[in-house]
Amino acid sequence: MKQIHRIPFLIIGGGIGGLATALALSKKGYPVHLVERAHEFGEIGAGIQIAPNASKVLDDLGVLDEINKYAVYPRRLILVDALSDEHLTTLDFGENFLRAYTYPYLVMHRNDLLTILLNACRQSDAITLEANREVVAVDDLGDGARITCADGTTYECEALIGADGLRSVVRKYILDDGEPVCVEFVAYRGAIPMEEVIESAGLDTIRYWIGPDLHLIQYPLRRGELYNQVAVFKSYHYCADSDDWGTENELEEHFARTHVSVRKALARVKRDRRWALYDRPPTDNWTRHHITLLGDSAHPMLQYIAQGACQALEDAACLADMLEGYEGDVDKAFLAYQEIRIPRTARVQRTARLFGDIIHCDGVGALMRNVLLSQRAADDYAYTDWFYGYSTERKEISDGH
Amino acid sequence: MKQIHRIPFLIIGGGIGGLATALALSKKGYPVHLVERAHEFGEIGAGIQIAPNASKVLDDLGVLDEINKYAVYPRRLILVDALSDEHLTTLDFGENFLRAYTYPYLVMHRNDLLTILLNACRQSDAITLEANREVVAVDDLGDGARITCADGTTYECEALIGADGLRSVVRKYILDDGEPVCVEFVAYRGAIPMEEVIESAGLDTIRYWIGPDLHLIQYPLRRGELYNQVAVFKSYHYCADSDDWGTENELEEHFARTHVSVRKALARVKRDRRWALYDRPPTDNWTRHHITLLGDSAHPMLQYIAQGACQALEDAACLADMLEGYEGDVDKAFLAYQEIRIPRTARVQRTARLFGDIIHCDGVGALMRNVLLSQRAADDYAYTDWFYGYSTERKEISDGH
Repeated sequence: MKQIHRIPFLIIGGGIGGLATALALSKKGYPVHLVERAHEFGEIGAGIQIAPNASKVLDDLGVLDEINKYAVYPRRLILVDALSDEHLTTLDFGENFLRAYTYPYLVMHRNDLLTILLNACRQSDAITLEANREVVAVDDLGDGARITCADGTTYECEALIGADGLRSVVRKYILDDGEPVCVEFVAYRGAIPMEEVIESAGLDTIRYWIGPDLHLIQYPLRRGELYNQVAVFKSYHYCADSDDWGTENELEEHFARTHVSVRKALARVKRDRRWALYDRPPTDNWTRHHITLLGDSAHPMLQYIAQGACQALEDAACLADMLEGYEGDVDKAFLAYQEIRIPRTARVQRTARLFGDIIHCDGVGALMRNVLLSQRAADDYAYTDWFYGYSTERKEISDGH
Repeated sequence: MKQIHRIPFLIIGGGIGGLATALALSKKGYPVHLVERAHEFGEIGAGIQIAPNASKVLDDLGVLDEINKYAVYPRRLILVDALSDEHLTTLDFGENFLRAYTYPYLVMHRNDLLTILLNACRQSDAITLEANREVVAVDDLGDGARITCADGTTYECEALIGADGLRSVVRKYILDDGEPVCVEFVAYRGAIPMEEVIESAGLDTIRYWIGPDLHLIQYPLRRGELYNQVAVFKSYHYCADSDDWGTENELEEHFARTHVSVRKALARVKRDRRWALYDRPPTDNWTRHHITLLGDSAHPMLQYIAQGACQALEDAACLADMLEGYEGDVDKAFLAYQEIRIPRTARVQRTARLFGDIIHCDGVGALMRNVLLSQRAADDYAYTDWFYGYSTERKEISDGH
């Protein structure tokens, strides 16, 4: 049974980026069809951090009130030395922060965010969502595109947006630039019920423990009912062709040197699944005629500065703005979109790498880093202005570097 | 022909530390005999930096006026990134510096300093100097010591001071703690006539170019007639049992990445001889009955903070002070001397190592270092107080770390 569907905008991928894009396009009056590979829409993983540049987008999409019901608004993020327990610096999310960036910093369960976006999409007559559609082929038609799914379903569309993540089929078709780069780090993550958190967990604080080739992030989720923990380390046993690296034994070995507070927390980090970390170097193109990329498929990045989903949300807003600005001229809108988004996301990709190098320092590097961080004032936003301050004016308000 | 000489104080080693000690003891009224292995008294190498903690000692020894005739008093020391030519920080030797430390920072030719100390010793009736005496054996006599020279000459003394450098025979006898530690760095150094210096050499500036696993130091010497240059790098071909590492080819390879100004300077660095760099971890004892150590034999250190000779001069002053304070009681004076000197020189040894790690950083470490250094004010002496400020009160005036 072969069906051909003709539709204006087709989005591949029902993650945060894809759903936000559907919502943003529909709000500009464009009908959207979205296909998702999985049997059901849903998110794996636990916590997600939403910085002001992204909460601005969520507000524009009309979902911030709903998010308020589930999110936690931490009062600060702190960096702590994972070996010595030394407090290094605070990023204050208080009044000065709100004055600077207008929108709040919030944390929530990934699945809560996805559900909210999904419900908003379902409420829109302009959006059609289809799960269980695994795309196996993409064809550039010049003034449109065709995709073929594993079940034989075929779609033709005026414009195609590949929001299909790290191992994007659309990226492979447009760029064919090989596999993403494995940085040989691995993450263990999960949320535990708050009542299992023994010590005062600091309900108002994102805790970022940093140490040599490792870090641990902690923050509360879902109205403070859950406590999210992510333990990350560099495996010294990486093997490209194997899954037998970044094991639980390595996790224990790496964290054996850390402060007792970190080791206590680590005991409650889930071990049943682990995630290898990947990114790609920035590219100078991600568009071909009426096909473009969005989110991780366009600019996969290390999660060290928690901007992966935030940048996907910025992408969604920008793409919709460009289509509106160019009155639906897909060629112009897609090129304008990537012209705006590539430099910015490239900088975020590079900054995430650099920040990783900084937090994972050892020896004299860690010593200098700690002095440097300790000198920073809690409301000094010199390092964050350029990405957190982006949303308010849809341009960078300050060049922090 | 076997001679036995009976003398009160015997110093082994006619370098800067040994001669300064002879002078300091003679000024307290103690007759001193000093033996030197070489055929003539003299210093190898070119420039030496004398910080206030040491120029205070030289003033007390009565030689600062003579030194003034040869020395250069730089107005500042600057750290410059050897790759980018970026100015990183300035240590200002101006009025605030003099107000803080009373005594000046000066640079001079090592041989000029040695000659001045030698002449001062020769003018003292209490000092006997003998060259061409290579010590081959040391014996602890409990209330004295005996040494035997290669030529069969034997000396017995009430007290023995081993100022015999990195490969000290006296240290081997007292501690027998093996070879010094080779840090696998090598130095090429030498002074060239000032007229050969093409560019404005900055007659009033010590230039410290720092880069990954390398550095280059430049400053004027001898009334500005000479220009001293020291190029240092870590060899990646170190071999304990060979002399075939740290070669001229490696020198060129290491510095190929550096800024054109550094490479131009390097072309005029002498290649005919190179020095491997050594230190030792601090020890908790360097005295046995009436035998003690002084200078490099006691606490060999990396020259990265230019404190090797300065610490030997401090040793000399302290040893003489203790003998005076304990009215010639050698047991008490030597123990008091090491009790004062070990913690301080240990800190200087460790700081030299740490400073080496800092200046030789690469990648993100260098990036953070440069930010950190750039934030420092030229007259901020927080990092230097504890060693430069030592001399004025013969104790640490501030704990910089």
